[in-house]
Amino acid sequence: MKPTTIPYLCSFTVRGIQRCRTLTVPVASAKATIAPVVSVEVDTPTYLEVPDFQRVAIIGDYASGVTMDDFELSSSQYLRDIEGGVFKPEDQVQPVFTTPPSNGEDPFDTKDLPKDLGYVARMKDGLIYVYNDAAAADKHQPKDLPCPDYNTFIDDMNFLIALIAQGPTKTYCHRRLKFLMSKFNVHEMLNEMEEMKELKMNPHRDFYNCRKVDTHIHAAACMNQKHLLRFIKKSYRVDADRVVHNLKGREVTMKELFESLHLHPYDLTVDSLDVHAGRQTFQRFDKFNAKYNPVGASELRDLYLKTENHISGEYFATIIKEVASDLEDAKYQVFSPNLKWMIQVPRIYDIFRGRNFVPHFGKMLENIFLPVFQATIDPQSNPDLSIFLKHVTGFDSVDDESKHSGHMFSTKSPKPEEWDIVKNPSYTYYIYYMYANIAVLNQLRRQRGMNTFTFRPHCGEAGAVTHLLASFMTADNISHGLNLKKSPVLQYLYFLTQIPIAMSPLSNNSLFLEYAKNPLLEFHKKGLVVSLSTDDPMQFHYTKEPLMEEYAIAAQVFKLSTCDMCEISRSSVLQSALSHEEKCHFLGQDYLKEGPEGNDIRKTNVAQIRMAYRFETLCYELNLIKEGLKSE
Amino acid sequence: MKPTTIPYLCSFTVRGIQRCRTLTVPVASAKATIAPVVSVEVDTPTYLEVPDFQRVAIIGDYASGVTMDDFELSSSQYLRDIEGGVFKPEDQVQPVFTTPPSNGEDPFDTKDLPKDLGYVARMKDGLIYVYNDAAAADKHQPKDLPCPDYNTFIDDMNFLIALIAQGPTKTYCHRRLKFLMSKFNVHEMLNEMEEMKELKMNPHRDFYNCRKVDTHIHAAACMNQKHLLRFIKKSYRVDADRVVHNLKGREVTMKELFESLHLHPYDLTVDSLDVHAGRQTFQRFDKFNAKYNPVGASELRDLYLKTENHISGEYFATIIKEVASDLEDAKYQVFSPNLKWMIQVPRIYDIFRGRNFVPHFGKMLENIFLPVFQATIDPQSNPDLSIFLKHVTGFDSVDDESKHSGHMFSTKSPKPEEWDIVKNPSYTYYIYYMYANIAVLNQLRRQRGMNTFTFRPHCGEAGAVTHLLASFMTADNISHGLNLKKSPVLQYLYFLTQIPIAMSPLSNNSLFLEYAKNPLLEFHKKGLVVSLSTDDPMQFHYTKEPLMEEYAIAAQVFKLSTCDMCEISRSSVLQSALSHEEKCHFLGQDYLKEGPEGNDIRKTNVAQIRMAYRFETLCYELNLIKEGLKSE
Repeated sequence: MKPTTIPYLCSFTVRGIQRCRTLTVPVASAKATIAPVVSVEVDTPTYLEVPDFQRVAIIGDYASGVTMDDFELSSSQYLRDIEGGVFKPEDQVQPVFTTPPSNGEDPFDTKDLPKDLGYVARMKDGLIYVYNDAAAADKHQPKDLPCPDYNTFIDDMNFLIALIAQGPTKTYCHRRLKFLMSKFNVHEMLNEMEEMKELKMNPHRDFYNCRKVDTHIHAAACMNQKHLLRFIKKSYRVDADRVVHNLKGREVTMKELFESLHLHPYDLTVDSLDVHAGRQTFQRFDKFNAKYNPVGASELRDLYLKTENHISGEYFATIIKEVASDLEDAKYQVFSPNLKWMIQVPRIYDIFRGRNFVPHFGKMLENIFLPVFQATIDPQSNPDLSIFLKHVTGFDSVDDESKHSGHMFSTKSPKPEEWDIVKNPSYTYYIYYMYANIAVLNQLRRQRGMNTFTFRPHCGEAGAVTHLLASFMTADNISHGLNLKKSPVLQYLYFLTQIPIAMSPLSNNSLFLEYAKNPLLEFHKKGLVVSLSTDDPMQFHYTKEPLMEEYAIAAQVFKLSTCDMCEISRSSVLQSALSHEEKCHFLGQDYLKEGPEGNDIRKTNVAQIRMAYRFETLCYELNLIKEGLKSE
Repeated sequence: MKPTTIPYLCSFTVRGIQRCRTLTVPVASAKATIAPVVSVEVDTPTYLEVPDFQRVAIIGDYASGVTMDDFELSSSQYLRDIEGGVFKPEDQVQPVFTTPPSNGEDPFDTKDLPKDLGYVARMKDGLIYVYNDAAAADKHQPKDLPCPDYNTFIDDMNFLIALIAQGPTKTYCHRRLKFLMSKFNVHEMLNEMEEMKELKMNPHRDFYNCRKVDTHIHAAACMNQKHLLRFIKKSYRVDADRVVHNLKGREVTMKELFESLHLHPYDLTVDSLDVHAGRQTFQRFDKFNAKYNPVGASELRDLYLKTENHISGEYFATIIKEVASDLEDAKYQVFSPNLKWMIQVPRIYDIFRGRNFVPHFGKMLENIFLPVFQATIDPQSNPDLSIFLKHVTGFDSVDDESKHSGHMFSTKSPKPEEWDIVKNPSYTYYIYYMYANIAVLNQLRRQRGMNTFTFRPHCGEAGAVTHLLASFMTADNISHGLNLKKSPVLQYLYFLTQIPIAMSPLSNNSLFLEYAKNPLLEFHKKGLVVSLSTDDPMQFHYTKEPLMEEYAIAAQVFKLSTCDMCEISRSSVLQSALSHEEKCHFLGQDYLKEGPEGNDIRKTNVAQIRMAYRFETLCYELNLIKEGLKSE
């Protein structure tokens, strides 16, 4: 049930919701439902036991008011049993994240980089293939790194498109989700005092000191607006005469740059800086993007919030280091044990192509992935990139989802090398090619004992529900997921597969959805795996503790209990790219186990009653489907 | 329009809404409505000018859809012209607050305390009278310190009770308020960009560095829960063997105290401390009060959050000093230029009487006020109290308003000395006697050149709307005011008289009203004077910046603009008990003037357009009533 980096389609054909990490669960779970979870071993410390609580038993529930016809249709027509599958925890493929350096160890040290494998990497039809040597490459005899098959992907995608529109399935999922909501409400009413009792008895741990991970935060907006303002003023005091910019071919000092903008940093305020989202940005992602420009000047964005500029991103690095309270004195390299990095790939092929930066979409993919493959094959050939990749934990895919591409991904779609028009390909097309390349790359890296990459796209913030469908097939984790509101089938599938969703209600509040209407509370109650994240503190937050601000507001508006908040905090650590060692430290040794067994309340402050409720509820839902399959 | 300490009824008879500080305004204002506010003097700096903006002109508006019959009935029957009154700013009586000591000056210095006047103070019928000497007192020949007459107060109260229930008046006020709301919405749509432009052009000032006052915060909950927890743990590490408590006659050390409670501070967490409001407190003020007891133990409340205990409140003082970042090394005296003090009088006569602490209600009033009168007459007789009173800025009245007293204040009510039953008198009875005593006291103190006291009761948090009526007649400012929602007439009167309302939506969210339903936004839009305050950070807030948390959440949930937030900040300073000197410093020299003239945008960051809108809108409403009176 944990996010994995196992490549989609890698071991067997996937049909609909049969993502390998998914339907392997009910087999094991069914047993757990029969043997109640309270039967723990004798030597288990008491804090691991599940206290008695009032279970919501549904006698004779068979599909919460769905007619039997509908139920059988939806479960038999679209779900098949796993072919003789028996669940073994070892079969789960976990992502590999780099462990933080031990004391005194230099995170930028290159001397232990692995040797060159001599392989050759080349792109073909939008996908990087790895060959033993140039001769094999010329003959297209790639190494055995199975990748998600193009036709099967489209086939499965079309299957899912039909599934989510299928009336009986929609009814079934809608009713089950409604039931899950009511069940949680009843559980809460009956057990919230008991859950709280567990937390009160739990020494040394409370919401404040249980670990929380900000699961989605953009580097270019990770500081708050006041911080950026102070930084700009300070940089001017120190660096006014430094050459920092190239103005139409002329090297200019910071003083000259500000003069050219008719500005003096001394007069700047948070208001004139104008980087905070406001009422003007609601439903206006385009305006929101412009808010990245301090004082509306892209020159200042270049100088302070970008890496490619006259000072090689020094200011940007310094700000991030300040945010991370990173006291290491490395120059521009930003490293902190509190930071994990993702590569954000913006879906702006149309802009690159329009300016003639690339001849076709395939070239853009090659630009992104080929250097990464080469650094994986021969790390010494690019030590900077190789070291950086050690600290990269995944890829993101970002842009305004409400823009419609007009393109429908199908077997007739042009291959990336043939996609030479200025128009952007669809969200799904992007997602497939990113995912396929990451899947191949991960197998190669895993073979070499290197860290692997997760795929965690922005998804469901706006736009078509098909985005959520593509991510369901490919993502380890998504950011936003608001539009799951619009598709009961997808919402139920995200629940069944426990795909983590990093939500940012304050960001949504400024861009797409009023706070009180945010589905965070609803998803949390139903049992979808949600975490809280800030997205862009510079634009959405007011205080010096943006993540705490996010939690505080959610707690206040949604009246979350301490147990709710600690459960969300725990989810944030689980779905984060912290290494196995760190997760053991923050969540307990058994964090990979399912249900209350996997929870160490001493570290997480999540009540065992809550864990049992979640586990039994999920098993019950999965079992219902299994029974449906049997009756077929 | 500013809060004053002028005693009610002091100079002339008040009838209904004719509070002296109120209807003097339209006379001056009417002129301003005719001559547009933009005509400022030539030598006025540009930042004081009101930029051009789109005014919402209502051609032929006469009462926003109210029939003429209703309008004439409501305005002619219940409102009378001021008898030949002409408004002079000098006539406004401003409260006197002690200026903060200049550098190095000792705020506790007693050597400049005024001399004994030799007067005698005695209580009669619940009111303290001041006499030249004992002989005059025996003959009841008090000095001329006019006090609000008992019968007139009840007469006016009954008049207002009838007024707020009067159909046509209700319709009139309801329609006007609805109109004010729509008018603001239109103003906002037309001018928000222009307002923002003013703020962007305003150098050095933004929402972060414009002054905000927390206008309502209880000392016993002014720290956040984490702070209290840390303090308890620290005190145990240092003071475990110190005698800190009297346990059934036996002096016990802190260690023994905790042992008797079967607790060890080392194990304590925010959860076990259990002082934070949660879902359990909603609509349960009784439970909320119990949340003041750390770990549910009143002994710990006594030790840490009270002044009367074995260590003379040392811990409580230390916590407050920490909150105020007060670095003075005075022992238990808590002083900080950032703190202003109020005396909170809980309405718990019933408990005192039940335990036989007092024989009747008059005694309770005497216990509260007589020492204050005596310290005012002869400061040297009680230097500690006299110095303390210099830093006291007002009286508060507090309790669960939802408890109904069953008593109706009338001419037949027993006098305080006759009120010897265990039952509590009504809210209005409390308010009248507190107010009357404060009014007399203030005249005496003003004559002596001493600081005066405001009356700022909790009001309208719950319970009957008559509470809001009593406060309308007496208060300088109220805390909460939620129930103004329930009475359009009172709401309109609070608007017309611009009585400041300190609102605490996060507190309400835990106790009485869900956040999104809080009327803060509605009141603000209509032009009622609101400020934001925390009430009890220990119980309602999560972050280390509770006031900022309050502003941030209001900004997020209600989508307040920067101008809105700065306007609310400005109101908070205006209605606060900061001294005249401090207000000049934070708001500008002319802060007492009405409209844009009184606003220094360089200090407040409030757009002049907004100030002009507010002023013109208020004048328009007042003028409408004046025209109504004329036509009569």
